[in-house]
Amino acid sequence: MFSKMATTVHTPFVLLLFQIGVFSLPVSQTPQESPTCGYKSCHAIKPGMLNVHLVPHTHDDVGWLKTVDQYFYGARNDIQHAGVQYILDSVVDQLLKNPDRRFIYVETAFFYRWWKRQSGDMQDTVKQLVDEGRLEFVNGGWCMSDEATTHYSAVVDQMTIGLRFLNDTFGPCGRPRVAWHIDPFGHAREHASVFAQMGYDGFFFGRLDYQDRSRRKASREQEMVWRASESLVPPVADLFTGILPNGYNPPEGFCWDQLCDDPPIRDDPDLEDYNVEDVVSKFLTVAQEQAKVYKTNHIIMTMGSDFQYENANLWYKNLDKLIRYVNQKQVNGSNIHVLYSTPSCYLQELHRANLSWTVKRDDFFPYADAAHDFWTGYFTSRPALKRYERISNSYLQICNQMEVLGGPTSRNGSFGVGNSDTMKKAMAVAQHHDAVSGTEKQHVADDYARRLANGWTQCQVLVSNTLAALSGSSAPRVYCEHLNISVCPLTESSSKFSVNVYNPLARPVGWSVRLPVNGTAYAVTDSSGNAVDCQVVPVSQATVVVRRDRGYAVNELLFQVRAPPMGYSTYSVSLLQKGPPPASPFPRAPKDIQNKFLKVTFDPETGLLSSLSNLETQQTVRLSQNFYWYNASDGNNKDSKQMSGAYIFRPNSSTTFIISKTAKIETVQNSVVQEVRQWFSPWVSQVVRLYADSRVLELEWTVGPVPIGDNMGKEVITRFDTSINSSGIFYTDSNGREVLQRRKDYRPTWTLTQTEPVAGNYYPINSRAYIKDEKDQLTVVTDRSQGGGSIQDGSLEIMLHRRLLHDDVRGVGEPLNEASDLYPEGLVVRGRLLLSLNPPAVAANTHRPLAQEVVLQPLITFTEGLLPPNTRPEFSGLQTALPPAVHLLTVSQWDPDLVLLRLEHQYEARDSKEHSQPVTVNLQKLFATLDVLGVSEMNLSANQWKHEMTRLDWKVDSGEKPLPKTKGDPSVWEVTLKPMEIRTFLLRVRLR
Amino acid sequence: MFSKMATTVHTPFVLLLFQIGVFSLPVSQTPQESPTCGYKSCHAIKPGMLNVHLVPHTHDDVGWLKTVDQYFYGARNDIQHAGVQYILDSVVDQLLKNPDRRFIYVETAFFYRWWKRQSGDMQDTVKQLVDEGRLEFVNGGWCMSDEATTHYSAVVDQMTIGLRFLNDTFGPCGRPRVAWHIDPFGHAREHASVFAQMGYDGFFFGRLDYQDRSRRKASREQEMVWRASESLVPPVADLFTGILPNGYNPPEGFCWDQLCDDPPIRDDPDLEDYNVEDVVSKFLTVAQEQAKVYKTNHIIMTMGSDFQYENANLWYKNLDKLIRYVNQKQVNGSNIHVLYSTPSCYLQELHRANLSWTVKRDDFFPYADAAHDFWTGYFTSRPALKRYERISNSYLQICNQMEVLGGPTSRNGSFGVGNSDTMKKAMAVAQHHDAVSGTEKQHVADDYARRLANGWTQCQVLVSNTLAALSGSSAPRVYCEHLNISVCPLTESSSKFSVNVYNPLARPVGWSVRLPVNGTAYAVTDSSGNAVDCQVVPVSQATVVVRRDRGYAVNELLFQVRAPPMGYSTYSVSLLQKGPPPASPFPRAPKDIQNKFLKVTFDPETGLLSSLSNLETQQTVRLSQNFYWYNASDGNNKDSKQMSGAYIFRPNSSTTFIISKTAKIETVQNSVVQEVRQWFSPWVSQVVRLYADSRVLELEWTVGPVPIGDNMGKEVITRFDTSINSSGIFYTDSNGREVLQRRKDYRPTWTLTQTEPVAGNYYPINSRAYIKDEKDQLTVVTDRSQGGGSIQDGSLEIMLHRRLLHDDVRGVGEPLNEASDLYPEGLVVRGRLLLSLNPPAVAANTHRPLAQEVVLQPLITFTEGLLPPNTRPEFSGLQTALPPAVHLLTVSQWDPDLVLLRLEHQYEARDSKEHSQPVTVNLQKLFATLDVLGVSEMNLSANQWKHEMTRLDWKVDSGEKPLPKTKGDPSVWEVTLKPMEIRTFLLRVRLR
Repeated sequence: MFSKMATTVHTPFVLLLFQIGVFSLPVSQTPQESPTCGYKSCHAIKPGMLNVHLVPHTHDDVGWLKTVDQYFYGARNDIQHAGVQYILDSVVDQLLKNPDRRFIYVETAFFYRWWKRQSGDMQDTVKQLVDEGRLEFVNGGWCMSDEATTHYSAVVDQMTIGLRFLNDTFGPCGRPRVAWHIDPFGHAREHASVFAQMGYDGFFFGRLDYQDRSRRKASREQEMVWRASESLVPPVADLFTGILPNGYNPPEGFCWDQLCDDPPIRDDPDLEDYNVEDVVSKFLTVAQEQAKVYKTNHIIMTMGSDFQYENANLWYKNLDKLIRYVNQKQVNGSNIHVLYSTPSCYLQELHRANLSWTVKRDDFFPYADAAHDFWTGYFTSRPALKRYERISNSYLQICNQMEVLGGPTSRNGSFGVGNSDTMKKAMAVAQHHDAVSGTEKQHVADDYARRLANGWTQCQVLVSNTLAALSGSSAPRVYCEHLNISVCPLTESSSKFSVNVYNPLARPVGWSVRLPVNGTAYAVTDSSGNAVDCQVVPVSQATVVVRRDRGYAVNELLFQVRAPPMGYSTYSVSLLQKGPPPASPFPRAPKDIQNKFLKVTFDPETGLLSSLSNLETQQTVRLSQNFYWYNASDGNNKDSKQMSGAYIFRPNSSTTFIISKTAKIETVQNSVVQEVRQWFSPWVSQVVRLYADSRVLELEWTVGPVPIGDNMGKEVITRFDTSINSSGIFYTDSNGREVLQRRKDYRPTWTLTQTEPVAGNYYPINSRAYIKDEKDQLTVVTDRSQGGGSIQDGSLEIMLHRRLLHDDVRGVGEPLNEASDLYPEGLVVRGRLLLSLNPPAVAANTHRPLAQEVVLQPLITFTEGLLPPNTRPEFSGLQTALPPAVHLLTVSQWDPDLVLLRLEHQYEARDSKEHSQPVTVNLQKLFATLDVLGVSEMNLSANQWKHEMTRLDWKVDSGEKPLPKTKGDPSVWEVTLKPMEIRTFLLRVRLR
Repeated sequence: MFSKMATTVHTPFVLLLFQIGVFSLPVSQTPQESPTCGYKSCHAIKPGMLNVHLVPHTHDDVGWLKTVDQYFYGARNDIQHAGVQYILDSVVDQLLKNPDRRFIYVETAFFYRWWKRQSGDMQDTVKQLVDEGRLEFVNGGWCMSDEATTHYSAVVDQMTIGLRFLNDTFGPCGRPRVAWHIDPFGHAREHASVFAQMGYDGFFFGRLDYQDRSRRKASREQEMVWRASESLVPPVADLFTGILPNGYNPPEGFCWDQLCDDPPIRDDPDLEDYNVEDVVSKFLTVAQEQAKVYKTNHIIMTMGSDFQYENANLWYKNLDKLIRYVNQKQVNGSNIHVLYSTPSCYLQELHRANLSWTVKRDDFFPYADAAHDFWTGYFTSRPALKRYERISNSYLQICNQMEVLGGPTSRNGSFGVGNSDTMKKAMAVAQHHDAVSGTEKQHVADDYARRLANGWTQCQVLVSNTLAALSGSSAPRVYCEHLNISVCPLTESSSKFSVNVYNPLARPVGWSVRLPVNGTAYAVTDSSGNAVDCQVVPVSQATVVVRRDRGYAVNELLFQVRAPPMGYSTYSVSLLQKGPPPASPFPRAPKDIQNKFLKVTFDPETGLLSSLSNLETQQTVRLSQNFYWYNASDGNNKDSKQMSGAYIFRPNSSTTFIISKTAKIETVQNSVVQEVRQWFSPWVSQVVRLYADSRVLELEWTVGPVPIGDNMGKEVITRFDTSINSSGIFYTDSNGREVLQRRKDYRPTWTLTQTEPVAGNYYPINSRAYIKDEKDQLTVVTDRSQGGGSIQDGSLEIMLHRRLLHDDVRGVGEPLNEASDLYPEGLVVRGRLLLSLNPPAVAANTHRPLAQEVVLQPLITFTEGLLPPNTRPEFSGLQTALPPAVHLLTVSQWDPDLVLLRLEHQYEARDSKEHSQPVTVNLQKLFATLDVLGVSEMNLSANQWKHEMTRLDWKVDSGEKPLPKTKGDPSVWEVTLKPMEIRTFLLRVRLR
């Protein structure tokens, strides 16, 4: 009964499970009748006419002014009238009333909440609507992610869980064909790249720079092919991209939602104000005007907006009439045809037009909607939330790995019942474009954080279960989440404890730990019982500042740890009696600090950094660094009344105000670390830190509470001024993957009129930025997303914190103040910038692995007392470390015997002579404790077999021809990755 | 095949038509299966528990902030979010989802608009819902009429067309059992009386004086029997009346409409903010508290409010949950049962409780919702609209009569196609409690007036057709609607014209006409060719003031006309050449003016009235009269911030400001009329007028534009100060029918704490008010509804006009300014007060017919030139005048061969020894030109056979027992009327 695997119908992953079985043991199948969804379900168009595609839609923020659950239920309607449960109720009802009607739904976080409360009958009804293409999912991720402040790994994850739910529930008809980012405030190239790899045929959005839009309208270039990777071979990362005509709103005068006031169509001639002729004539004009700025005889109108369709009858009743009365005009010679449509139906017509489209190669940052209105503030807004989201991603990946390594025990083991789902959903929600972006109300930001904390609570049980299973010890695991502020009750009070360091990366990693203690001398041994060099130093005063009313340690114990790939090692710590107190820090700056890799000099007058040298490459740059603030505009400005706010960065002028020209200094130097502690003011301090074995200079900054007693909003930056001849150019990453070149006062696709010399030159930094010249590249790796720019040659500035007094009138309705009951004086934020200096040609060899180490950091857990005998002190889930170019992006339990695996080539094609090469991994030899029984390659979002992923081809007018598609890897187990390639597999596994 | 008429099922009047046939030619019928609507469709209650009747409802104003059609369509949602078409769409959808759900609908003006646009399938669906009692109509008039400023004849008409539509459409299940006046601002006894006579089993309302409510809550007297007539034999005018617990809103915290912000029930324990326990516990508390102020173990909650249920899903989804979760508590011992219900189901349970109820005999005026917040301003607000509504009622009755008299020709005759429906609907809409009340926005007031004008335009065609048919002349009829300001282009320019005077009353009426002319001498002849005494006088300067930019006449031609019952007479007018100019008015007041009936004296110093004598009865009273204004409160007041506005009359103090102590005078005296023209200021003037043959003194006042340059809002009154010893008592009519006694600073049913000495003593005057002592009764008949009071003994004041600078914060959101593009300086209003002086025992003999003459005034039409030969100059539709006590309330075409007739005994039982007696009319001998072939007596609203009108009996605790029901009149054709009785018939007629 063997046959080739020609299943065109694959769907609910209940079925998929079976098909995975098919992969290793294929059986013949009778293909089911295809439902008429997707492109097959589109209404007929009229070829000789201008066809107007009306797309009924709602845009449902997964949290913004209200929390996601408040939005779902329609609670707190005093803040904003919005209730998603009712939207879905109403739309389904209305779709049933007229088979011509169409609706698209986008945010699976909401759809999921609704679906699980529906009766079986209602679920069947909705399936029927989906099968007939009357209800179509677009985008389909858990949320519509932010593009400026998200990391690609979290974006891939959130898309995966959203699309999986749709696939499980609806099968192929639930698979979105179109990506739909109508609201995010600028668009990242990496998002386009991952969307292409997820199999989307096209992408639509609503917001772009007003100058860019203006030029594109004039030249009819609002629709294009976005070539979203410089490494991946076209058309792998090509994505057809369309700019919607009215953001995502209906044309003016045609909004018939309950939230709108436009006049309904009054077609009863017996009543007053009959207006059919007026409405039709206005509509024909609007359509004709819109057609002038698009290329084909098809145009799209988005008939909906934020939280609309709660009472869908209002919309559909009037749209039915509009369609009827406008099309009736055709008998009088009108050349316009209106129809209910969807983005995919519109896209299909663009594709059928068979035109050549321009190619877009850069991105859509920064976004400005007017001359002084650059949406570059949110790159930094809510820096603590941004960090918490980033570290939660690390937690989640560890939790996922632990779930696979622990098997069923992980979810129900000696520490109880835990799960990774809570964290998956919390992280997915946090990717929303008003979540990690920092553009939500304070109470909603608190809610996102609470969800992440709940997720981590569930994961802690799971991690404890797995560590117990792997180590053979069920000693309680203690999690210290406040090590960054030197708080950990166990280490502070215990005289004997062990430290488990779990490394989620696919290669061994070394790491410096700093544990708050009250003793003065400790002995540390590693997994093999060997002594480890350790030091006790007094806690930095800057740390104390942020600790508030907690009990706290006076000292920190420092030592270097190392953990195997996807595994852990264990260190034992014992308090030594009567050790001498640690040396007091030296109250002045040293001339320099150095280890075998780096040397850092300080200006003795100011205490500031003065140079950085790479001792291996023998290169040195002048490097001074300090902290400054811009005075946030309060709107009192002759050019514009725009104020700085959660979204918008608008300094009152380009002037930076220095916090202090000199720093108060303390120096700590020992065998483990050398630290220069700098105090610039009561609210700005920094530790310049060089660990013994590190090629990276760590700058740990602490900023806050930002004072506002002077009634001036402040945007706090740190700035590096170097001798590098950067010629107006600097570089930033896109969502943590590929790096884009940024040039001052310049945009690649139009002649920029620069109106904001600082804010207009800010770009999102997700994981790194650098400046370089022929000889030197100074790379800064960040621990969260931040905004930054290079306003002067040789200079790189990064915005660290913002505290503002005004709302910026983009809807959030609150100044970004971040003071609350918990921290009434304002929020203190701490973070790290990691600096490396290298020759440009090899710089990626440092910053690529470094950035992954910051994103996926080891998890440190503690157990009280000595390790019990028979405890396994060290473990690796991999048979061997993966090659340096390969990043283990995803290891996650999919179903009881299936694991989702993503392998990524983490170098760009031009990154590194050494690493930018194809590299092969054998999947069967991957795991140390799992047998891989079968494998099936998927698209990036794991909602489609890779071999069935056929996307629409688009002609481009660049003259280039896309290469012919390469066939899939002939070997099942040998997987080759080319630069920037991510390959996604479902593995059938068995725990050994 | 003859049998008795025992049809228990009578329904759509399509059927009724047949049944009328049955009356004269009865045939046996198999009764159809009764549908389970009405009382039979109520949900089971739990006898031992407190039963909470949840009544989902919407309150849809037939115009207020928006016009009726704007409300229907949901246009101008910028003013107020409200769209009735969507409410009905949505409610029907939601009722279908759960057969337990219930909804009531009230305003047929809206339901009709919706119904006629529905498909046959939808109509069938709605019929099914109505037949099953899931959708129930309550009240069911075209609108929910105002009670303070409406005339009973217009109220009966508007109820009739609303209830007829429901009967025609739905049959008996469409017949409302309950009257429902949840919003009107005080409640008239006459409304209760007519509701009782329409067959309603009960009546609910929401607004009453806050002191009254407080006492009734304490004594559990919020439900009672209202004995609404002092003449009709109980229980004919008894109406069970209930006061709703929260106005007509849901209890606080339980409003789940899209217009509300209360938290929805969040019952998914996986989501945040699960609140089922909170909501249930709060609801139980609310129910228990409410039960304490009502008598039975049933309470009602009105779950809805203004324009709610546009998205009914929000309400029902949460109510379903509320019912489920509250009733679930019963297993834990909760004693509260919640159910979907309707007012009739609640009423049925009150009836089953078999208690005795207190009897209410007065009315619910004035209405105050706080100590300084008396809703007594709207008694006068928009006096021009109030007059236009009243005269439109007269037009409509004439139009109705003409339609019957003219037969089919009336609707399609020599002048084209006309109808009475437009005017019927316009008048019905104008009865709404924000229409004639004057409490709507200016643009809505304009809309009501426009509708009335459109109605009259249609009626003019009909009237012209009928007059042509009756007279045999198709000469064009000219309508001069501006005679009150001496404008009529035809009479101003023509040298020969004829004047047709149509009298809608059932007895001959004499009338003085004043025609604007430019000639100085005319000859007038009557229908028989006899000369008629006529006089030409110069147009009063006060008239010129209000004429603005029209061409205008310099003189007026005055003569007395007379017309037969329900008929016309014709007068011919010819200009005489070279007549001398009319005498200039004499520039001083005479000592007195008098005719054979009355004598009026003037104070020579002031020019003001000083006494009035009835020469027949030889009685004289001191009578001075002048004009004053109250300074409307602007809210700057230590007691309260309440301002005067459209609803509320709140003088800043009880002080009246006199316009002028003396009047500038002109006197005109001739054989037809004696006039003293008084000018008090540029914006207040009056003509004191005594016609030769009149028992009534006419005061024609002209007020406006009220000056507001001093930033003081003004409430303008005229006050009569007399020698009558009124002892703190005066009298006002209720909706133009029965008269109630009013006592200063007193309410019959509770001990009043008077907080507003003027506004708190104001009452609505619909057609008349009087003061009296043992000897003298001074009656003032008004030409529209006005507010008035007797603040001092012997004094009677009437508010004529109001111009205010502030909104009174009751929702209308506009100051009552009445300045618009048409009259930017403010509105000038003119009206008439008719004074009679009689001994109290016989006063009604004058004021009853007089008031009917003012309500139903003759229609004067003109034709150019001489009457053609063979023109029939005189016509009466009646075989003979009806007896003086009988008022021909309604003569209106019902169906092609059916006529609706209402005969009314227009005297109260105690009015008149002479007239307060039973009187008999023979229906077959009624009409001169119609054969009456059959007759069927109906309830007052003509939606039920009279003999089937069985209402619930209610026990009262007054000790009185209602008399046993009298059987119907044994004679078919002889109809006996007792005082205040109205009898309603459908006549099968044939035009002779």
